[in-house]
Amino acid sequence: MTDPTSSLNPIANGNLPGHHVELGAEIPLRLDSGAFLGPFTIAFQTYGKLNADKSNAILVCHALTGDQYPAEQHPVTKKGGWWDLMIGSGKVIDTSRYFVICSNVLGGCMGTTGPSSVDPKSGKPYGLEFPVITIGDMVRAQTMLIDHLGIEKLFCVIGGSMGAMQVLEWASKYSNRIYSAVPIAGAPRHSAQNIAFHEVGRQAIMADPDWCQGNYIAQKKRPRRGLAVARMEAHITYLSEPALHRKFGRRLQERDQLSYGFDADFEVESYLRHQGSSFVERFDANSYLYITRAMDYFDLAAEHNGVLANAFCDTNVRFCVVSFSSDWLYPTIESRAVVHALNAVAANVSFLEVETDKGHDAFLLDEPVLHKTLSGFLDGAIRHSGLKL
Amino acid sequence: MTDPTSSLNPIANGNLPGHHVELGAEIPLRLDSGAFLGPFTIAFQTYGKLNADKSNAILVCHALTGDQYPAEQHPVTKKGGWWDLMIGSGKVIDTSRYFVICSNVLGGCMGTTGPSSVDPKSGKPYGLEFPVITIGDMVRAQTMLIDHLGIEKLFCVIGGSMGAMQVLEWASKYSNRIYSAVPIAGAPRHSAQNIAFHEVGRQAIMADPDWCQGNYIAQKKRPRRGLAVARMEAHITYLSEPALHRKFGRRLQERDQLSYGFDADFEVESYLRHQGSSFVERFDANSYLYITRAMDYFDLAAEHNGVLANAFCDTNVRFCVVSFSSDWLYPTIESRAVVHALNAVAANVSFLEVETDKGHDAFLLDEPVLHKTLSGFLDGAIRHSGLKL
Repeated sequence: MTDPTSSLNPIANGNLPGHHVELGAEIPLRLDSGAFLGPFTIAFQTYGKLNADKSNAILVCHALTGDQYPAEQHPVTKKGGWWDLMIGSGKVIDTSRYFVICSNVLGGCMGTTGPSSVDPKSGKPYGLEFPVITIGDMVRAQTMLIDHLGIEKLFCVIGGSMGAMQVLEWASKYSNRIYSAVPIAGAPRHSAQNIAFHEVGRQAIMADPDWCQGNYIAQKKRPRRGLAVARMEAHITYLSEPALHRKFGRRLQERDQLSYGFDADFEVESYLRHQGSSFVERFDANSYLYITRAMDYFDLAAEHNGVLANAFCDTNVRFCVVSFSSDWLYPTIESRAVVHALNAVAANVSFLEVETDKGHDAFLLDEPVLHKTLSGFLDGAIRHSGLKL
Repeated sequence: MTDPTSSLNPIANGNLPGHHVELGAEIPLRLDSGAFLGPFTIAFQTYGKLNADKSNAILVCHALTGDQYPAEQHPVTKKGGWWDLMIGSGKVIDTSRYFVICSNVLGGCMGTTGPSSVDPKSGKPYGLEFPVITIGDMVRAQTMLIDHLGIEKLFCVIGGSMGAMQVLEWASKYSNRIYSAVPIAGAPRHSAQNIAFHEVGRQAIMADPDWCQGNYIAQKKRPRRGLAVARMEAHITYLSEPALHRKFGRRLQERDQLSYGFDADFEVESYLRHQGSSFVERFDANSYLYITRAMDYFDLAAEHNGVLANAFCDTNVRFCVVSFSSDWLYPTIESRAVVHALNAVAANVSFLEVETDKGHDAFLLDEPVLHKTLSGFLDGAIRHSGLKL
């Protein structure tokens, strides 16, 4: 067992590499709930150089448990960036051409203000006093960051999973501030099944006595077991049955025969346990509650009387919508709904369903068709926009 | 909150209606693990009358959380039997024609010996001292029950989900003792994804401090929260996304707008929480561990050098294999593997994939095509067997 006090606050906000900016000090951010938040911090990372007319910026939006380190070693896990395959010099999101921005979402736990941050009013961690936030709130905070950087219009907003939700939100609410949008493996709303899986994860966390009704930091505890269970469950949904079968099948873990016990007999059990236990070293349990809630609440059509197309009226944004054939968390039908809505308003949209057995997580993996298509899309966007690199 | 001491042992073994028989007192049951178990109790229920030559018996095998009350009010929940739609006078499994037997599986918690039973050697509940069991062990215990009832050959063995695994085990190991076999929504082995889901459920239980390393009965506790989380997760896998969408969609629970909190905003959350909290009133957490483990271990082909057909060599059993189109827990491909194996040994097999959006749980629901097909299959089996009713 890890010493339970050794990493009470594994994410020492002030010590993380990268940029931090305080926003909303004078005019607080008005949240969708009606609450106000300010001042708050946005932690972000940039790669490449902003050109003279500030027209080459790409905003990368991260997924539920991602962060602002897509293209460098992670300061906590020491692993490579979560989108190293996509971002870098000569890669799809070419840092020799573009100025790449990635910020930790509002409610997160890697430097941006979230439930584990200290509430300036009380001097204590917010815990459940942190206001419930939405994808809309996350994106509104991002617009403030973009303002702060002096960028009027982003060349592209791109992201997978919850990142795709943010892309759609940008395209819907701030279409005049983006030139192109790439929502990958996303959905215009969270399905009943997805809400159900999230609810199980939240219940697992809240069932852990070390959650302490959300006050675990003050109590010098952390709901490790509950958070690990939540991660294990979620992780299954990020993969596909064929991928699990190919990777693990029914192979036994370092043994020749069944143990007739409750140890991890099967490789897939051992793998999942590792996913759970390593996750708790880098993620805050309350952030998990808040961010999953934001995803559950996301429903672009509902904001427009149930007509998704109305979320994109008169858009000039160029879209590339991507799904993966074996993604059962955000299946192709969800991306198709976005494409149909965009077609209904005569938007400029291309659509790609990548044939793969890797499931939802394919957006993070080596998928040549994905990378080739996005390169082509961005090249086309350069030509059409007249972007000078 | 329920009084935590009010239902420490909700399943008072001795007080349950129905039959109980002690087996294995003289010759204990040799388990697949190599351990011996005996004496042990099998709790079972019967409906209809055994005919003079004892040839009209149908054994109904229950699923993971089922029990021996398929066709009557449940003594704990007071709800109807879990297969009331299938079993009864004039129904598919017609109690005016057949003698229907249903026994609680070994490792269960409704009267059959399981981890919550008192170990006669120690005078204390087994807890984790209970030996790990397999589907093979469950069926071997059932053969002892059938011996006890003086029945040489069952007219049919039928069951869904884990019940189907037992049916396949009967057909493989005791083919001379059954005339027909109906495995519904089953599989010849548990997939990596299914093992993964089970492992998350087990981890949720074992993460609950009230699990007390398995000794919760002695400690006068019960791991309610962990077991509820396990049930919630499993319940999602029993349904399909279309069924969840149809039943709940994104409808809010008794409110007009989002609460911006962590209460059950959505109907699907409320439904799942109810599934979790009601389950713990009728099921033992350690039984959940043991029975899920038995399912994980099931792999008929592995016992025959990886060739599933060899599990059914020279069989004379008449099979009807059934799957459901929207069952993603035991998808049709699993049933097809069984059918192909049976075809390879020239067995008498019919196969039905029921078109439905109800997911895995469809085997418990009103599916007219299922019921009509099984009626026809059983009628045919009567004609071919010359069964006198």
